Amino acid sequence: MSRPIALLTDFGLRDTYVGVMKAAVVERLPDARLVDLCHEVPPQNVRRAAFLLLTAVPYLPRGTVCLVVVDPGVGTERRPIALAAGDYRFVGPDNGVFAWALRELARRDGRTLAAVDGRLPLAAGGRAVELTERGYWRPEVSSTFHGRDLFGPVAAALAAGVALERLGRPIDWLVDLAWPEPRRTPTGVRGEVLEPDGYGNLITNLRPEHLPGRPRFEIGGRRIEGLATSFQSDRPLVALIGSSGFVELAAPNGNAATLLAANAGTPVRVESG
Amino acid sequence: MSRPIALLTDFGLRDTYVGVMKAAVVERLPDARLVDLCHEVPPQNVRRAAFLLLTAVPYLPRGTVCLVVVDPGVGTERRPIALAAGDYRFVGPDNGVFAWALRELARRDGRTLAAVDGRLPLAAGGRAVELTERGYWRPEVSSTFHGRDLFGPVAAALAAGVALERLGRPIDWLVDLAWPEPRRTPTGVRGEVLEPDGYGNLITNLRPEHLPGRPRFEIGGRRIEGLATSFQSDRPLVALIGSSGFVELAAPNGNAATLLAANAGTPVRVESG
Amino acid sequence: MSRPIALLTDFGLRDTYVGVMKAAVVERLPDARLVDLCHEVPPQNVRRAAFLLLTAVPYLPRGTVCLVVVDPGVGTERRPIALAAGDYRFVGPDNGVFAWALRELARRDGRTLAAVDGRLPLAAGGRAVELTERGYWRPEVSSTFHGRDLFGPVAAALAAGVALERLGRPIDWLVDLAWPEPRRTPTGVRGEVLEPDGYGNLITNLRPEHLPGRPRFEIGGRRIEGLATSFQSDRPLVALIGSSGFVELAAPNGNAATLLAANAGTPVRVESG
Repeated sequence: MSRPIALLTDFGLRDTYVGVMKAAVVERLPDARLVDLCHEVPPQNVRRAAFLLLTAVPYLPRGTVCLVVVDPGVGTERRPIALAAGDYRFVGPDNGVFAWALRELARRDGRTLAAVDGRLPLAAGGRAVELTERGYWRPEVSSTFHGRDLFGPVAAALAAGVALERLGRPIDWLVDLAWPEPRRTPTGVRGEVLEPDGYGNLITNLRPEHLPGRPRFEIGGRRIEGLATSFQSDRPLVALIGSSGFVELAAPNGNAATLLAANAGTPVRVESG
Repeated sequence: MSRPIALLTDFGLRDTYVGVMKAAVVERLPDARLVDLCHEVPPQNVRRAAFLLLTAVPYLPRGTVCLVVVDPGVGTERRPIALAAGDYRFVGPDNGVFAWALRELARRDGRTLAAVDGRLPLAAGGRAVELTERGYWRPEVSSTFHGRDLFGPVAAALAAGVALERLGRPIDWLVDLAWPEPRRTPTGVRGEVLEPDGYGNLITNLRPEHLPGRPRFEIGGRRIEGLATSFQSDRPLVALIGSSGFVELAAPNGNAATLLAANAGTPVRVESG
Repeated sequence: MSRPIALLTDFGLRDTYVGVMKAAVVERLPDARLVDLCHEVPPQNVRRAAFLLLTAVPYLPRGTVCLVVVDPGVGTERRPIALAAGDYRFVGPDNGVFAWALRELARRDGRTLAAVDGRLPLAAGGRAVELTERGYWRPEVSSTFHGRDLFGPVAAALAAGVALERLGRPIDWLVDLAWPEPRRTPTGVRGEVLEPDGYGNLITNLRPEHLPGRPRFEIGGRRIEGLATSFQSDRPLVALIGSSGFVELAAPNGNAATLLAANAGTPVRVESG
C-alpha cells in the first residue's frame, strides 16, 4: 500500500486544476490514497498555506507525503523541492510555505529551528533536495502548472517509496517565512492572530506556556477573562486552547472575526488577570 | 474491504478540519473508502444537517458508516454516540442531527418513530451506545475537535467491523429534532419548505400521499397548478416530485428560492385544483 | 483494478448531490477510484462544463471514465449517452457538453471534427450509444436526478469493464456545441475569452499557431506586448501560453478578469507587434 498523499493548494474548486493534478498522481500511482487538506487558500497566500500546514501536519498519518502548491513564482527561478522531516515527506516550491511546519515538527521533537538571513538551515531538522531529475516529471513541463507536470508526479514517486535522494540534488537550507513569536512585555505578553478559521474563531500564536496563571486577553478594545473549555458560554467572547494547541478567541454562537473586525496580524495582549 | 464512510459536517472547505478528520480515519483504517456528503452545512445548523442526512441515507450503500459532525455543544456534556439502524451505522453528537434520518429509515420499513418529551425512543428503531471506550479514540482528546479525536477514529473502528456494543454503553433514546409534519386543513394541506438546494429548488415536507388528485400549490402569494415531470417548462414556477420523494417547487431556468424569497420554514399550502 | 472515474457536474457542494451520486457508483463498484474534476460549474452552464472537460481530458489517465452531469434537460427527451473516444469513456446527457473535448481529442490525433446542422458526426471520432439498457440503472429512476439513478451506475459499469455496446443502442452523431474558432482579419487574428479561471486569468481560444511572430494583444482597450513565460512581471498585464495550450491573459499579482471586466466571449485582437 502506498503512502497517503495530503494535498494543500490555492487552486480553488471552480476550475479543474485540483482534479488534473490528482489525475497526474493517479496516472503514476493507480492505488493513490489522496486526502484533501484544503484547496481554498486565497490565491498566492503563502502565509495562509504555511499556517494550515503547520496545524495539520502533526495529525497526519506517519509517512504521509504533503503535496503543497501555493506557488506565485511558478516558472521563475524559485526552486522546486522535496523534503523529509519527522515521519513526513513534503513536495512543492521553495518559497517559505514549509517553514512553519518544519519549525513545529522540530519543536515537538524538543529542538528549535532558527532562520539566518531569511534562510532556514535544515541541519538536524530534515533532509531536502532541489528537484532536478526530470525522469520523475511529466515529459512536457509547462511554465505555469508545476502541480500537474512536476510536483504531482514527484509526490506519486515519493508515495510509491522512491528515495528522496533520487529526485534531485541535496540542499541544506530552505527559504524561511518569519514566524511571529509572541513578545514578553513588562506586564505580560503580546501576541497576534495567526488566522481566523471558517467559524470566525481567531487562532493566535499564543501557546499555553506563554500564559500567566489567570490570563486576561485584550483584542480590539475587548477583554476576555480566563480560559474556557468549550465554545458554549453566556459570554460574548471566550478564549480557549484550541485543537492545534494555540489559544483561540471565539464568539459563542457567533463569529469572532466579524465581531472584532480581526484578521491575520491583529494584536492580542495578555496580562495577568 | 472496509465499509464505506460517508462524511457530513459544517467544517467548510476553507480550513483543514475535514482533511485532518479524514487523516484521523486513514491513520486507523489505511484502506478507508471515504465519500463526502457535504461539508458546507452552515456553522452549527443541526436542522440543515438533519435534512441532508435524511435525503442522502436511503441512497448510500448498505453498511455505510455515516460520520456526522455538526456539533455546537462540543466540549459540553452532550453525549457522543454511535447508532445502528437499518443497514447503516452513524457516529456523531447526540443533538438531534440523526433524528430525521432515523424516522425516514423507520418509515421506509413501515414503522413510525415518535418522540416523547423531546426524546426519540429507539425501541425497534435501532441500537445505540454512548461512546465511552477511550481505547478507540485518539490518546489525547481536545475539547473542541471531537471529529478528529473521537468521532473519526470511532467511525474507522465501525468501518473496520468493530461491533457497536464494544464502543460504549447502551442507551435507549436520542435527542429528537421536531419533524414538521404537514397538517390537514378543512380544504387541503399546509406544509412548509424544508430547505432550498443549491439550484434554488424548494424541497418541502410534502410527499405524494399528502396531495389531492389535482394539487394546486400556494407559496408566497404565487400559485402553481398540478405536478410537472421535469424542470423544463414555459411556466415561471413548477411543482414536481423531487429525487428524494418530496414535493419540490422550482423556477425553470431560474432560482425559486430567490424568486419567492423563500427559505426553510416558508409555508406551502395545497388545495384541490 | 477498475478504471478511474473523473466527475464533472454543476451540483455544487452545498447539497449532498455529489456525495449521493458517488454513493451510487460505490454501491456497484466498491473499489471505485473517483477523481473530482469540478462540481462548481454554474447551474446548467453547458458551455463552462464543455470548456473544463476540454482542458482536463488530455491530462487524465488512459482509460478514465468521465462522468459529466450538467443537465438542464433532465427528465425531457434529451438522450442519455455513453461514448468512447481516444482512450477515454464519457457518460452524461447529449446536450453538447462533450463536443469540445471530442474535437480536442480528434485534433490531437491529427483529425478535425466538423459539425453539420448542429450535429457532430462521430464517424472516425469515436463510438457512442444512447443509454437504453435499464439493467445497468437503479431500479427506480427519478425524473430529476439521473446522475444518481442512471449516469452514476452506468459509469460504474464502464469503469468495471462493461463494453459500451452493452449499455444501449448505437448512435452516430451527438448534439454539438459551436466552437468559437479564431478568425483571420486583414492585419491579424480575432479571438475571444473562453473562460476566466479562479485566479482571474483569461483563457482564450488562441493557440500558438494563431499568433504572428511578435504578437501584440488588445483586450478591453488595453495592449499587451509579446509573450511572457511566467506570471511574475512588473507589467500590469501579461500574455503567455497557458497550461492547456491556449493563450492566457493574466494580471501579475492581480485578477485580470476583474481588472478588464472580461468574461466568456470578451473579444481579443492580435496584431503583429
